[in-house]
Amino acid sequence: MTISIPKLQHTDSGNFFLMAGPCAIEGEEMALQIAEELVRITNRLRIPLIFKGSYRKANRSRLDSFTGIGDEKALKILAKVSETFGVPTVTDIHESHEAAMAAAYVDVLQIPAFLCRQTDLLVAAAQTGKVVNIKKGQFLSGESMRFAVDKVKESGNANVILTDRGNTFGYSDMVVDFRNIPAMQENQVPVVMDVTHSLQQPNQASGVTGGKPALIETIAKAAIAVGADGLFIETHPTPATAKSDGANMLQLSNLEGLLEKLVRIREAVK
Amino acid sequence: MTISIPKLQHTDSGNFFLMAGPCAIEGEEMALQIAEELVRITNRLRIPLIFKGSYRKANRSRLDSFTGIGDEKALKILAKVSETFGVPTVTDIHESHEAAMAAAYVDVLQIPAFLCRQTDLLVAAAQTGKVVNIKKGQFLSGESMRFAVDKVKESGNANVILTDRGNTFGYSDMVVDFRNIPAMQENQVPVVMDVTHSLQQPNQASGVTGGKPALIETIAKAAIAVGADGLFIETHPTPATAKSDGANMLQLSNLEGLLEKLVRIREAVK
Amino acid sequence: MTISIPKLQHTDSGNFFLMAGPCAIEGEEMALQIAEELVRITNRLRIPLIFKGSYRKANRSRLDSFTGIGDEKALKILAKVSETFGVPTVTDIHESHEAAMAAAYVDVLQIPAFLCRQTDLLVAAAQTGKVVNIKKGQFLSGESMRFAVDKVKESGNANVILTDRGNTFGYSDMVVDFRNIPAMQENQVPVVMDVTHSLQQPNQASGVTGGKPALIETIAKAAIAVGADGLFIETHPTPATAKSDGANMLQLSNLEGLLEKLVRIREAVK
Amino acid sequence: MTISIPKLQHTDSGNFFLMAGPCAIEGEEMALQIAEELVRITNRLRIPLIFKGSYRKANRSRLDSFTGIGDEKALKILAKVSETFGVPTVTDIHESHEAAMAAAYVDVLQIPAFLCRQTDLLVAAAQTGKVVNIKKGQFLSGESMRFAVDKVKESGNANVILTDRGNTFGYSDMVVDFRNIPAMQENQVPVVMDVTHSLQQPNQASGVTGGKPALIETIAKAAIAVGADGLFIETHPTPATAKSDGANMLQLSNLEGLLEKLVRIREAVK
Repeated sequence: MTISIPKLQHTDSGNFFLMAGPCAIEGEEMALQIAEELVRITNRLRIPLIFKGSYRKANRSRLDSFTGIGDEKALKILAKVSETFGVPTVTDIHESHEAAMAAAYVDVLQIPAFLCRQTDLLVAAAQTGKVVNIKKGQFLSGESMRFAVDKVKESGNANVILTDRGNTFGYSDMVVDFRNIPAMQENQVPVVMDVTHSLQQPNQASGVTGGKPALIETIAKAAIAVGADGLFIETHPTPATAKSDGANMLQLSNLEGLLEKLVRIREAVK
Repeated sequence: MTISIPKLQHTDSGNFFLMAGPCAIEGEEMALQIAEELVRITNRLRIPLIFKGSYRKANRSRLDSFTGIGDEKALKILAKVSETFGVPTVTDIHESHEAAMAAAYVDVLQIPAFLCRQTDLLVAAAQTGKVVNIKKGQFLSGESMRFAVDKVKESGNANVILTDRGNTFGYSDMVVDFRNIPAMQENQVPVVMDVTHSLQQPNQASGVTGGKPALIETIAKAAIAVGADGLFIETHPTPATAKSDGANMLQLSNLEGLLEKLVRIREAVK
Repeated sequence: MTISIPKLQHTDSGNFFLMAGPCAIEGEEMALQIAEELVRITNRLRIPLIFKGSYRKANRSRLDSFTGIGDEKALKILAKVSETFGVPTVTDIHESHEAAMAAAYVDVLQIPAFLCRQTDLLVAAAQTGKVVNIKKGQFLSGESMRFAVDKVKESGNANVILTDRGNTFGYSDMVVDFRNIPAMQENQVPVVMDVTHSLQQPNQASGVTGGKPALIETIAKAAIAVGADGLFIETHPTPATAKSDGANMLQLSNLEGLLEKLVRIREAVK
Repeated sequence: MTISIPKLQHTDSGNFFLMAGPCAIEGEEMALQIAEELVRITNRLRIPLIFKGSYRKANRSRLDSFTGIGDEKALKILAKVSETFGVPTVTDIHESHEAAMAAAYVDVLQIPAFLCRQTDLLVAAAQTGKVVNIKKGQFLSGESMRFAVDKVKESGNANVILTDRGNTFGYSDMVVDFRNIPAMQENQVPVVMDVTHSLQQPNQASGVTGGKPALIETIAKAAIAVGADGLFIETHPTPATAKSDGANMLQLSNLEGLLEKLVRIREAVK
């Protein structure tokens, strides 16, 4: 279960790692501000950090939703975060032609859950040589993700991460099935729990996805207790003003207290 | 609910329309043979026919699954079917750059269910001016498909079809929710039931999707009874030897008898 | 698939049969009034009728919900309906000691969906010699109902009906899986679709179950098209004033038009 | 969240409590042997113990399944366990007339999940004055269990426990939704995770429910991490030879090691 992520710090701490950042890159100042706080917290708690930000939102419900500030502009901000703080970064790609472009700026390419069966996209991501983080489709079991892992590995890239973001549960709810963490770990890859998207309330009549951020702690504690290797948390200083996913991001000022609790659980299950 | 599909015949019959053909284009001879039989049957029963074939399978579970005979080769076969029999054709696209390429050969561009939230793909399909058939995501309600319809219409293309192919029901089963047919018809677009994919048994441990073809008649009868505007049926002379989706295609020799029953139900609900 | 129900009329019409009536017996006048109208309609359309009414509601969400007017009083009203109009009646029982009591007044004993696994209840119902209508649990497949059928048959009673009332679909919705109709017919017993309870929206925060009565026609048409032997419809002259299940009953004045459409579909699929 | 359970020990330890024992009481010797081992382990780890055993299995899939050794015989064995080891006991009841009978022998009456909406049963259990443990229906949200709690409290009994045993997830699987633990704790009652039934694989074609006992540790760790007040674990020296639920009980020899891990997590989240 050892993969190599450039610049990743605190890898000897025995702690879970953290993929965190805003949903979308909304601007340089905001990204640097969030990154600075994430770096401060994770340095103190000795948690390996990968900074997360989407350079484009390609599957919003509505055409009039915010989709980004421009691909290259956003990717350059991710690169600046990486240089400024010496941390690796992750962003998601949606079509195969984006893989090489994004790979020029970030360390981990993320495959969105809806797209985890798209062979061309997985192969293109694999061929960049970057770490590939595949989100489990909301409609797939943990067991079935081995075929996605195989598509990347058979393309010559063994640096794969799998991330669970919950399962479809009726039309307007999601449920996290914690059996999927050990099931996905069978692939000998790190397994991450995406605690913020798991709490989405999709398919709202308004076309604006809802969420249950009060339950972030519940999902995160359970994930660490069952042995998740990492956590994925979207966070923002003021979620209510964020341009996407405001309904389910964690308020940045609540992150440190949450991580302290999780580090204690990690200690207890080591 | 009137959209314009070039070459579509029997549009004055009051009948449902049929999108049918093999899952993937495996070769010219096979395609022409299936099309000939479909044309004979639908001419006799006065059913408008759109010939269906995938030029590439982009989301197979496994990397070693059959993905096609070559994009352009397969698209040319679809064009030949259209010329030979004077029927419109439909094929599915997976990334936005494929839209223009496929539009040069077919009349209807189909958006796969997993991809129905991908804005770039919907917009690219819309911009070709071709009819766009959007499959409802297995994880979405019929109501929520209005946002996908809007993405196409707001891109200047009002020729939209919506197709239901069932909902995720646990990890290894699908269920068709017939409430989605009237719900999707609220968008004033034709609504199709995909009776063969609805019966898939996904997520098999083997990576080979199973199916329940014995229940095709059940799903098709219910769809026509509740007022579906069209049916989508993958069919093959010998499903067991097909290179994809063999587990849930309808044997071609069973199609005529099935359609006769469905035409009678259509008459009863007119 | 022939079972013997006393007093059942129009059995030679080739039509589906109808179990219909109010959710709960609220009083004699109301029951006779509904019965009279049901008898008039079903005589005209030659539909075999079983009059339905609950003498007690035993599983309401809240303790302060209406539960009945008194067991014996309600049962006597059912008997009076039967005598007055010469039709069989059905009521539901909840604990085994109720079987003999209810059997003294009605022709069909119904096992509620939540209770379809309770062996004592099934055996007690079977031992009365009355027809036993078992509702499929919202959590069970059609296939698994064969064990419930066996419990009744092995208790010496072959007169079994199975009724589908939908499946749990997330916490606040239900979905009807029409594959269950042929699956349950494998038991060589009549299979009924309960079109009103199938449309419930359970688990509302208020403890008052909601519904989608506008979709009754959709579910009923699909059921008849796929070959259901009977329909179960709760109906009331003014659902909004009913003491239970008002949210999903069919307004009585809409029944005749609905049944006319269904009779035509039945003709088409015979 | 304080309720009073007679004889419960180690209540000052700050630990979660444990409801454990065999699925069904198969005989006195077996019951005493299991109880002795449970008492030894829980005394060492300072875990409050409630001994669990069913005196009758009333909802087996098949009529030929084992249902018990006789009600009174089994209840007397539960009483003997209680006297011998000075621990409280729990058993499940299925119809209201069983409440008083069982209450003469045990300290906690358990309402099975399928029956959690049956008002008569809840009221009868409440009226015995015993603690009432209500299992959450597989088809209900945690939020909706407040109506079941109210039925008991409004019958004059405030000693209620709520237990989660997972949710229906398709026809042949269950999923545990850990959001239900805080949701049920809103009722100010202790909330228990039933880790063995949560892993059932229901609806098997054979009528014999399967299970995934290898995942017991996963479910139990997550439950304690999110703050469950208690755990429910069915255990047997040799599950393969047990007369019911053999597929998902925990082997008794594995219990002590599991509890040691869980006590550490409990410490970390206190």
